[in-house]
Amino acid sequence: MEYKIALIPGDGIGPEIVAEARKVLDKVCEKYSHKFSYTEVLLGGASIDAHGVPLTEEAIAQAKASDAVLMGSIGGDAKTSPWYKLEPSRRPEAGLLAIRKALNLFANLRPAYLYNELRDACPLRDEIIGDGFDMIIVRELTGGLYFGARKTTEENGVRTAVDTLSYNENEIRRIAIKAFEIARKRRNKVTSVDKANVLDSSRLWRSVVEDVAKDYPDVTLEHMLVDNCAMQLVRDPKQFDVILTENMFGDILSDEASMVTGSIGMLSSASLNETKLGLYEPSHGSAPDIAGQNKANPIATILSAAMMLRYSLDLDKEADAVEVAVQKVLTDGFRTGDIMSDGCKLVGTKEMGDLIADAI
Amino acid sequence: MEYKIALIPGDGIGPEIVAEARKVLDKVCEKYSHKFSYTEVLLGGASIDAHGVPLTEEAIAQAKASDAVLMGSIGGDAKTSPWYKLEPSRRPEAGLLAIRKALNLFANLRPAYLYNELRDACPLRDEIIGDGFDMIIVRELTGGLYFGARKTTEENGVRTAVDTLSYNENEIRRIAIKAFEIARKRRNKVTSVDKANVLDSSRLWRSVVEDVAKDYPDVTLEHMLVDNCAMQLVRDPKQFDVILTENMFGDILSDEASMVTGSIGMLSSASLNETKLGLYEPSHGSAPDIAGQNKANPIATILSAAMMLRYSLDLDKEADAVEVAVQKVLTDGFRTGDIMSDGCKLVGTKEMGDLIADAI
Ligand SMILES: CC(C)[C@H](C(=O)O)[C@@H](O)C(=O)O
Ligand SMILES: CC(C)[C@H](C(=O)O)[C@@H](O)C(=O)O
Repeated sequence: MEYKIALIPGDGIGPEIVAEARKVLDKVCEKYSHKFSYTEVLLGGASIDAHGVPLTEEAIAQAKASDAVLMGSIGGDAKTSPWYKLEPSRRPEAGLLAIRKALNLFANLRPAYLYNELRDACPLRDEIIGDGFDMIIVRELTGGLYFGARKTTEENGVRTAVDTLSYNENEIRRIAIKAFEIARKRRNKVTSVDKANVLDSSRLWRSVVEDVAKDYPDVTLEHMLVDNCAMQLVRDPKQFDVILTENMFGDILSDEASMVTGSIGMLSSASLNETKLGLYEPSHGSAPDIAGQNKANPIATILSAAMMLRYSLDLDKEADAVEVAVQKVLTDGFRTGDIMSDGCKLVGTKEMGDLIADAI
Repeated sequence: MEYKIALIPGDGIGPEIVAEARKVLDKVCEKYSHKFSYTEVLLGGASIDAHGVPLTEEAIAQAKASDAVLMGSIGGDAKTSPWYKLEPSRRPEAGLLAIRKALNLFANLRPAYLYNELRDACPLRDEIIGDGFDMIIVRELTGGLYFGARKTTEENGVRTAVDTLSYNENEIRRIAIKAFEIARKRRNKVTSVDKANVLDSSRLWRSVVEDVAKDYPDVTLEHMLVDNCAMQLVRDPKQFDVILTENMFGDILSDEASMVTGSIGMLSSASLNETKLGLYEPSHGSAPDIAGQNKANPIATILSAAMMLRYSLDLDKEADAVEVAVQKVLTDGFRTGDIMSDGCKLVGTKEMGDLIADAI
C-alpha cells in the first residue's frame, strides 16, 4: 500500500533521530512492499528560522494532507538560543501546542515501561522493580490550563497574571473512553488522577469518568489525587496499568514516570484525534547539548514510528517487526551512551539505526 | 517564658501523634523552665462532627490568639467516611485550606532529606543517593489554582467547570524572599520551578523571582520547568537545595520529594505568615487505616514541634535539643513499623514518644 507521511525533523537532535526512524521505515517498505512518500514539515525553531513563526498554515495543511505525522523534537537551549528572545507565543514550544490544537490531537498516549535489558538504568531499587513495570499514561492534550484564556494586567503598578483551567464534559468523556478502550487491551485497570478535593474541574472530571466507567464493567476504575500519584510512581510503579489524567497533570506525571523507568531514551508517544491521523514523537526532548554528535538514542523515535504503523496505518505486523527488531538489538547488547552499561557495546545514533533496520 | 500553643489533633492518626509531640514539648518545658499552655482547636473531620463545618470562626480566633499552632493531620477515607458525602466546601480538606487563608500562611516550608539511618528505606539506588540529599521545598500556599475563582455551569445539557490560576507580583515577591533568605542559611542555591513556556502566571513568576534575586547576589538562581523537575527529583535529587514554587506545583513536587527520600514518616512542615505565628504539621496524611492502633510514626509531628520552637517561639536551643533527641533514638536503633529494617527494634507510637522525650 501507499502512505503519505509528514516528517518533522524539528530542532536539536530531532533531524538525526528522525533520519534513523526513516531508515527503519524504508526497510519496512522494502520488506513488506509498501510505499511511503515523505513530506518534510517545519515546526518549532526550524520554522522560526525559515518563516519567523513556529508553525505556518502551510505546515498545518501538509500535516492534514498526510496519513500520519512523525516528529523528532523541538526547542533549544532557553539560555542561549535566539528563539527565546522572542515573545512566548512565537517560541518553538508554541508551535507544538498550536499543531496539537490544529489537528485536534486530544489524546496523548505515553507508554512507560522498563526494558528488562535496562534494569540497571532504572533509578529504583531492585525490590521496587520486582518483575518490572509497564504502564501507559493517557493524557488529555488540547484542554485545561495549557489552552485556557490567559492575561497579564497591571493596576497601580502591580502586575497580575491569570491562567484558566477549563474542561467541559465532552472533552473529558472522549479521553476517558480512550483510556478505558486501551485498558481493555491491557490489564483492565484505569487510575484516574485529579485534585478533586480542591478543583471544580477535577470534580467534573471524576464524575464524567465514573459515568464512562459504567460502560466498561470489565475494567477496574480507581481515583487518585495528583499529589499522591506523584508519590506512588516512586513508591510502587507496578500498581499502575493505565493512568488517565488532564493535560498539566499528565505533563508532570508522564515525565516523572518515564524517568522512573530509567528508559527515557526509549519511550515513544502518540497524539491522536478522532480520525486515523496522529502525531508520533519520542517522550524525550531535543537535547541541544548533544545535537549533531551522533550520540542521541534514536530508539524512542523508531518506536514512535512503530506506534504510527499500528495506530494510523493499521500495519500491525509491520509495527510488531519494528518492536521485535529493537528488542533483538538490545538483547544483542548494543547501546547508545544514555543506556550504556558494563559488558555492552557502545554505538552511535547512525549505527543504532542501521542495526535496527538490519534486524527487520 | 510562657507561650500559648493551639493544638489541632485532627483526624485519623492525628490525635495519637499530637499527643506524643505534646509529651516531648512538656519535657522541653521542664528541662528549660518554660511554660506552654495548650488550647485544643477543632479542624477538619473533628470539627464537622462537633459543629457541622470543617472550620469555625471560634477555631480561627483561638489560633490567632496563640503564639503557634501545632497540627496532627486531617481528613479520612474518602470511600467510607460520611464526611465525603458532604459537598466539597464542607469537607475536612476545605477546613485546612480555609485556616491557611484565614491566618494568611503564604509560605509553606517542607524539608525533604534522607536520614542516614534510613538509607535502606530510600527507594532510589545507592549510586543515586551518594552522600545523601537534603532539600527544602518552599511552596506558595495561599494563591494560585487552589484559591482562585471556580464554577461549574451547564449549557444545552453540557457541563463545563472552570478553575482560575492567579498571582500578583506581591504574592510572588514575598514567597521568593522567603526562599532566598532560607537559601542563605543553607547552600545558597534556589531552583525556581514554573511552566513559563506555557503559562502567563509562570512568566510573571519568573520575572519577579529574577528581580528578587538581584538582592541576593550570593545565592545562585536557576529556573526549571515543572515537568523537568518531576524527572530531576528522581534522577538526581542531590542537585537541589531550595526549590521555590507556586501552590499546586509545590503540592505535587513536595509529595514526590518526600517519597523519594523514603522518610515520609519523618518529614515536618511549617506554614508561615509575615508575623511570628505559624502552623506546623507533618508532611504525611491522616492514615485512617492505622488510626488508634499505636502504629503511627510520631517523628514528623515531633520534628514539626521543633520547627515551631525555632520559627514561632525563637527557642533555637530547645529546637536543637528535640532534633538531637530524635537523632539519638534513631542511632540507638528504635523504629516504628513504617521505617523498620533488619536488626532494629520495633516500637509503637507511644514508646517512640517516650524514647524521644527521655532523650531530651
Ligand atoms: C513543550 C511543552 C509545551 C510540552 C507540554 O508541556 O505539553 C512538553 O513538555 C510535552 O510534554 O510534550
Ligand atoms: C488536603 C489538601 C487540600 C492539601 C493541599 O493540597 O494543599 C494537602 O495535599 C497538602 O499538601 O497539604
